[in-house]
Amino acid sequence: MPKFSPSVLRQYCYDVMTASGVDSVCAEATAEMLVDAEVTGMSTHGVSRLSIYMERIQAGIMSPDNNIRIVQEAPSALTVDAGNSLGAAAAKFTMTKCIEKARETGVCFAAVRNSNHFGTAAFYTKMAAEAGMMGLCCANLKGNVAPFGAAEPYLGTNPLSLSCPTKTRPLVTDIATSTVALGKLILAQKLGKSIPEGWALDKDGNPTTDPAEGRKGMLTPFGGPKGSGIAIMIDIASGILSGGGFGNHLTGLYEMTGPQGVGHFMGAIDVSHFTDLETFKEKVSEMSAEIKALKKAPGVQEILMPGDLEANKRAANEANGIEVEEPVYQELLKLGKPYGLSL
Amino acid sequence: MPKFSPSVLRQYCYDVMTASGVDSVCAEATAEMLVDAEVTGMSTHGVSRLSIYMERIQAGIMSPDNNIRIVQEAPSALTVDAGNSLGAAAAKFTMTKCIEKARETGVCFAAVRNSNHFGTAAFYTKMAAEAGMMGLCCANLKGNVAPFGAAEPYLGTNPLSLSCPTKTRPLVTDIATSTVALGKLILAQKLGKSIPEGWALDKDGNPTTDPAEGRKGMLTPFGGPKGSGIAIMIDIASGILSGGGFGNHLTGLYEMTGPQGVGHFMGAIDVSHFTDLETFKEKVSEMSAEIKALKKAPGVQEILMPGDLEANKRAANEANGIEVEEPVYQELLKLGKPYGLSL
Repeated sequence: MPKFSPSVLRQYCYDVMTASGVDSVCAEATAEMLVDAEVTGMSTHGVSRLSIYMERIQAGIMSPDNNIRIVQEAPSALTVDAGNSLGAAAAKFTMTKCIEKARETGVCFAAVRNSNHFGTAAFYTKMAAEAGMMGLCCANLKGNVAPFGAAEPYLGTNPLSLSCPTKTRPLVTDIATSTVALGKLILAQKLGKSIPEGWALDKDGNPTTDPAEGRKGMLTPFGGPKGSGIAIMIDIASGILSGGGFGNHLTGLYEMTGPQGVGHFMGAIDVSHFTDLETFKEKVSEMSAEIKALKKAPGVQEILMPGDLEANKRAANEANGIEVEEPVYQELLKLGKPYGLSL
Repeated sequence: MPKFSPSVLRQYCYDVMTASGVDSVCAEATAEMLVDAEVTGMSTHGVSRLSIYMERIQAGIMSPDNNIRIVQEAPSALTVDAGNSLGAAAAKFTMTKCIEKARETGVCFAAVRNSNHFGTAAFYTKMAAEAGMMGLCCANLKGNVAPFGAAEPYLGTNPLSLSCPTKTRPLVTDIATSTVALGKLILAQKLGKSIPEGWALDKDGNPTTDPAEGRKGMLTPFGGPKGSGIAIMIDIASGILSGGGFGNHLTGLYEMTGPQGVGHFMGAIDVSHFTDLETFKEKVSEMSAEIKALKKAPGVQEILMPGDLEANKRAANEANGIEVEEPVYQELLKLGKPYGLSL
C-alpha cells in the first residue's frame, strides 16, 4: 500500500484544489483537516473525501470561493454564513474567531449556516484545546437516523466533539449521535454477518439484525431516547440558531441535487477565565491516570480515555507515514492528472 | 393518596426549611425546584428529597446559610463557590447570572464548586428557555458508574439537560449519563424481574441480567464509549473547571461522612444575539410538528419530543393537584412537627 508523510499528502490535496480554482485559504483548511483525519486513523473522513468535494465544486453545487462572512456578532456570539464554501474552511474560520473572542470574554459560541461537510468535528475542538480552552463542535447533516419512536429517517448522524487540554495531549471525544455509522451496516452485509439488535430498524420500524434490511430502513440514535434528544438539540443549534436548514430538508453529501445547506455549532471556553490553567491541566491528567488505573473489565487490554486511540495512531502515522488504500491512491492520482500533478 | 396544589406544597417546604434556620433565599430556590420536579412527574427528585437535605444540614455537613460567592468573573464566564450551601440555591443563582450576562454578550457559561445535590438539571435550563435562550446544565456526582472498559465505579450519573424556547412550551432534554438510574435495578429486584443486558455489570465487570448482581457491581454509561466520554467531560467541566472535586473523590448524597463537594456547569445562549428569536421559535415548533408527524414505530402511540412527557404531567398536576405517596407525606409531616407546621 502506498505510504506518504502527512506533509506530502497535505501539499498534494492543497495543490489539486488550488489548481482547480479553489480559494487558497479554503484549500489549506480542507487539506489540513483531511490529513489530520488520516493521521488520527479516521480515514473514513480523510483524503478519500477529496473526490466528492471536487465533484460537487465541478457540478456547481459547492463554491470554490471563500464566501465566508460574519452576519451577526456580539462579544461572545457569532453567526456565520458560509456562503456554500468548503465546510472545513467555514468551521476553521469560525473556531479561530471563537478562540480569539473567548480569550477576551471567557467564552464564545458560534452558529454557521449554508455550509458543507466539514470532516471530523474533532479537528476544530482540538484547536480550542491547543489554545488552553475546552472546545465543543457539532453539526447537522442529512441522514437516515429515525428520532426515537419514529419509523422514518429525519436526522443525520449529527456528530458531537468535546475537548479539553491536559498536561500532555488533549482529551477529545468525537461521536456520531447514531448508534453506529452506516458504514458498519455496509461492511456487515459485505461480510455476510448479522448486526446486533439496536443498530438499525427495518423499513417498518422494527428492530432488525439483518444489515440489508437495516440499509433499506434506518439507523437508530445512540442510547435510545437520550441520544435522540441530543441529536435533535444539535440540529436546532446547527440548523435553526444559525438561521439555516434542518432535519430532512438538508441535502446529503452524495446527493448531487443542490447545496447541502448544513450548519455547524461550536464554541471555545477559555479555562484561564474560570480557574488556573496549569492546575486544570494537572487535575485532568490526574483524572485520566486514575481512570486508566481502574480494574479492567474482562477482555479489556487498556481503558481508553477519549482520544487515546487517535493519539496512538498519530504517533505511529507520523513516525511511519500514512498508508493510503490503493483505490483511494488511484482516485487521488486521477484528481491531479488534469493539472499535471502527481503523488 | 394526599393531594396538594403546587403552591401549598412549595410553601410548606419553604416554611420547614426557614423554621429550621435555612436562609430564606436558599429555602425558596430549593422549594421551587423540589415542587417543579413533582409537577413535571419527576418525583424521584421531588419533595421526598427534603428529608435528606434537612438531615445533612442537621448533621453539620451542609450549610443552612447562603455562602454562594462569585470567585472569578469575565464578561461571559463565572466561577462560583457555593460554600456548601444548598445545591438548588447555588444553581439558581448561577443560572440567573448567566442569563443576565448572556443578554449583554450573547453567551455566558459558569462553573460551580463546593456545591450539593441540585435536583433536576431541567429546572435550570428551563429558566434559560423562558428567557428566550438555549440552556445547558450538567453536574458531577459521586456514583457507581464504571467508565467504558473499567470494572470499577468512578463516575456519578452526571446528568445533562439542554433546552430551547419554542412558540409554546420549551423543548427540554434531561438525562442521566448512566444507561439507567440505580432505582430501576432496585425496582426490578423488588419485583423479582431480570434486567436487560447492558444496564449493569457484576462486581467483576461482566454484563449481568440479575439486578442483585448489578447492585453489587456497577452501572454502565449510556451508549457505551459515547456516553462514557460525555460523562467524563461533564465531570471535568463541573469538577475541574470549577476548581472543585471530581470522580470518586466526591461524597454521595446519602453518605453522611462530609460535604458532597460536587460541582455544576451551566450556560445560557441568547438566541437573539444569533438570529431573530421569533423565527427561531417558529422553526423549532415546525421541526417538532414534523417529527411528531413521522410514521410511528410499531407499538408507539405518540412520538415524544424532549420534555413532552413532563409537560403533559404538568398540565395534569396543575389542574388536579400533586399526589404525594403516603410514606413521603408522613415524612414531610415529621419534618414540620418540631416547628408546629402541618400540611
